[in-house]
Amino acid sequence: MLKSLNKESDEPLYLQIRNQIRDLILSGDLPLGARLPPERKLAASLGVNRTTVSNAYHELTAEGLVESQVGRGTFVCALPGTTRDQEDFPPRPLPWNEHFVALSEQVRDPLIRELVALCSQEDMISLAAGVPAPELYPIERFAQSTDRVLRQHGHALLQHCPTEGHPAFRETLTELAAGRGITTSPDNILVLAGSQQGLDLIARSLIEPGDPVVVEVPSYLGALSAFRAAGARLLGVPMDEEGLRTDVLERMMARYRPQLIYTLPTFQNPSGGVMSRERRQALLYLAQRYQVPILEDDPYGELYYGAPPPPPLKSLDRQGYVLYLSTFSKILFPGIRLGWLVAPRPVVDRLASVKQYADLHSNTLAQWALTDFIQQGWLGEHIAVLRQEYPRRRQAMLDALHCHIPQGLRWNEPTGGFYLWCHLKNGLQSKDLLAEAALQRVAFVVGEAFHADGGGQNALRLNFTYQNEQGIKEGIRRLGEALTALLKRRRERRAPRREAARPIV
Amino acid sequence: MLKSLNKESDEPLYLQIRNQIRDLILSGDLPLGARLPPERKLAASLGVNRTTVSNAYHELTAEGLVESQVGRGTFVCALPGTTRDQEDFPPRPLPWNEHFVALSEQVRDPLIRELVALCSQEDMISLAAGVPAPELYPIERFAQSTDRVLRQHGHALLQHCPTEGHPAFRETLTELAAGRGITTSPDNILVLAGSQQGLDLIARSLIEPGDPVVVEVPSYLGALSAFRAAGARLLGVPMDEEGLRTDVLERMMARYRPQLIYTLPTFQNPSGGVMSRERRQALLYLAQRYQVPILEDDPYGELYYGAPPPPPLKSLDRQGYVLYLSTFSKILFPGIRLGWLVAPRPVVDRLASVKQYADLHSNTLAQWALTDFIQQGWLGEHIAVLRQEYPRRRQAMLDALHCHIPQGLRWNEPTGGFYLWCHLKNGLQSKDLLAEAALQRVAFVVGEAFHADGGGQNALRLNFTYQNEQGIKEGIRRLGEALTALLKRRRERRAPRREAARPIV
Repeated sequence: MLKSLNKESDEPLYLQIRNQIRDLILSGDLPLGARLPPERKLAASLGVNRTTVSNAYHELTAEGLVESQVGRGTFVCALPGTTRDQEDFPPRPLPWNEHFVALSEQVRDPLIRELVALCSQEDMISLAAGVPAPELYPIERFAQSTDRVLRQHGHALLQHCPTEGHPAFRETLTELAAGRGITTSPDNILVLAGSQQGLDLIARSLIEPGDPVVVEVPSYLGALSAFRAAGARLLGVPMDEEGLRTDVLERMMARYRPQLIYTLPTFQNPSGGVMSRERRQALLYLAQRYQVPILEDDPYGELYYGAPPPPPLKSLDRQGYVLYLSTFSKILFPGIRLGWLVAPRPVVDRLASVKQYADLHSNTLAQWALTDFIQQGWLGEHIAVLRQEYPRRRQAMLDALHCHIPQGLRWNEPTGGFYLWCHLKNGLQSKDLLAEAALQRVAFVVGEAFHADGGGQNALRLNFTYQNEQGIKEGIRRLGEALTALLKRRRERRAPRREAARPIV
Repeated sequence: MLKSLNKESDEPLYLQIRNQIRDLILSGDLPLGARLPPERKLAASLGVNRTTVSNAYHELTAEGLVESQVGRGTFVCALPGTTRDQEDFPPRPLPWNEHFVALSEQVRDPLIRELVALCSQEDMISLAAGVPAPELYPIERFAQSTDRVLRQHGHALLQHCPTEGHPAFRETLTELAAGRGITTSPDNILVLAGSQQGLDLIARSLIEPGDPVVVEVPSYLGALSAFRAAGARLLGVPMDEEGLRTDVLERMMARYRPQLIYTLPTFQNPSGGVMSRERRQALLYLAQRYQVPILEDDPYGELYYGAPPPPPLKSLDRQGYVLYLSTFSKILFPGIRLGWLVAPRPVVDRLASVKQYADLHSNTLAQWALTDFIQQGWLGEHIAVLRQEYPRRRQAMLDALHCHIPQGLRWNEPTGGFYLWCHLKNGLQSKDLLAEAALQRVAFVVGEAFHADGGGQNALRLNFTYQNEQGIKEGIRRLGEALTALLKRRRERRAPRREAARPIV
């Protein structure tokens, strides 16, 4: 049936066999349904190993040209792949789930997306999402800035801009950093599509699968996702009233040589904690001693409701160990998707290389409009408004908790930021409370989401900035009802209804 | 010096030794400058292998507690890591370049970023960047849309939106797709921060290191970067006047089982080519037969200057093999950073999972404003303007080429899109021409950038949409001067001045 093979050729023998048989099928000499010779027989007649013929048949099978039927042999099963013959080829849908790369289950957890979707539910009081008060958004002023830059600079600003960011915006961010005690230059600033992109770019640039990364316990769930997606092995370090326990960290660093330390030192998410000045210095010292970079995430530092917090780690960093990440999502509005990083030049350059193929650069209109908005002095005025309003809401939440939740829950009293961090007593679990809360139309985030180590089952995070005082009071009243119902259920030894919980977190 | 070791302990012997010595250093019993016992001697006294002691000393060295001096021994070199002792620890800058993960040299090539930076040079005529005509930007109308949505929906639109995109925008994109012959639903659409983000999310979701990915030769350089960054092995398939050579592709698919086929079937970047309807059907047939997904990138399909091109591959796809990617960067303006993908639900879900930790969601103001702009009918009107103006510019470039470049270069005459694809004759190299062109203050993109296989040294891409007719004429005149100078240089056997080339691409 086949011509003799060329054993001198660069083309492997099995491919020569495959090609000859394919040609016979394509030419019609081997018609649909024809049986190929048994492998052993063909191998003998060609003077090759049976494996060689077997490989050729496998190739043909993979191409869909032949199929083997157990106990019967191998048969021509499809006509040639030219457009004329499409009718004969039965089309099959692509099984997409077999084509995706592996992704850790923890990363696939749609928690954040579901939290975001939650915001659109009208009848639910959300104490879950970490977003600012929408009714305080300085929309009129932002619209003025947007309109002004569009009409004055439209042709330039709707163009591409450098991957690192619009130059005037980087200048303005330098001044913003100076106001937080950080002396830097525009060349050390990278503009980001929200600080979440900073977490992702840093993870992609510093972390390889298996690399240990230190995180606080608890910590921001979006950061945990970004690190897990890069394959990080998360090492949780506990916190006390002064912040991250540097004594525990030191033992961990000596043993595990982490690739990165991630910390939210100021009004930590979710705990609300503030790292003391001494602890900041100790952390920086350890980083230098073990040559480990620190990623300082600071979304909330400007939102203090009493004495200002200690200066950022970055302001203490003389040797380029600290990457300082911040955002406008908490002090302005989240939809604008603008964050920024202060970092040594090699880091800015490297992250820009990755950002180049990730999204080329961030939205230019938002960068120009925000530059104008900040230069008008309106950001500073807006933050002053927030510093007046948010402590009232915090107090409203504390008062409501005292009033409606007489037992079963303890909470902290944070001096800034967005969150109360609460713990259920007596072995109650926050996911069970959430199931009851969903029935009462109030939502929060369960503590597990913030725990790299799988703890936090009795914890929950309550946001006090998104709802106004009335919404907070009603939300906590409903939470009290939910807790009462949970306690009643427990006394009755009935399992809570859990099926309602999924959609709301 | 040391206590005897516990050989029953779970703690390895070398760590027991390290810990004991560390305690002695930390307590001050081993002062700064003290010499540790020679490894062999300590091993003998403890009854362990010398390697065990050596490992312990290495740990202490890595911690910065001791250092070994060749021929002298190992000495205590730093005091304990408490804040009290910071003065004694000499701070060192972090060597960042040792901390980054590996990144292919090809990906680090800052070509696109430098192209973008080029746009800001005033005295350079850029025929390089692939951007639309800025003076045609519908700024007044876009400003109206932006202002309207901000004032009408500010509180809602500056919030977070779902990762998949603003619902009304996804609805509108469904209609846009229908206008291109693609029947789909909002659930099958993913909003992106530019189509570059689509390339990155798809690469991260479908490609593992070493996976073969088919690309056209030449192809879009931003896609090559995204695939290379994911570790893809790029397989280049040549094109002819009907587009991608499906006969070559078939052999390649049988042999390499690619993970993905990437194609720009309509007004291809950079070649300007259009895949014939028959070739589109053959490609889709091969994808189904070998069960390989196709990524169809279609930034230019609406920009035809004669008869409309064949329908998108996606419009022929009944089995969910095609991911259809498009953008507003070419038909509106690039600074808005909005692209979109039409894909089967499992792909939208999976990519949204990745986008969630990449940037959470895309800029909401841009999504709302563009929804309004499209619903007003202004996008359609703008595209009609572009279809009138761009063929004039294309003709101006063709005329100028005929006039100013009598020899040494051949070019195509594309029927749509943004680019002329040119080839130097007689062994001339486009990077040498670029060096001369930089001196004449005109820029283009060298062909190598678009070649997955390292070819294209004699090719160059000229954009005819960014400059007006006058700019095009002057730019081509300068290019003619550059080519004349290059030919003269070659006759004189002098190397061209190359140092000027770097900044302009």
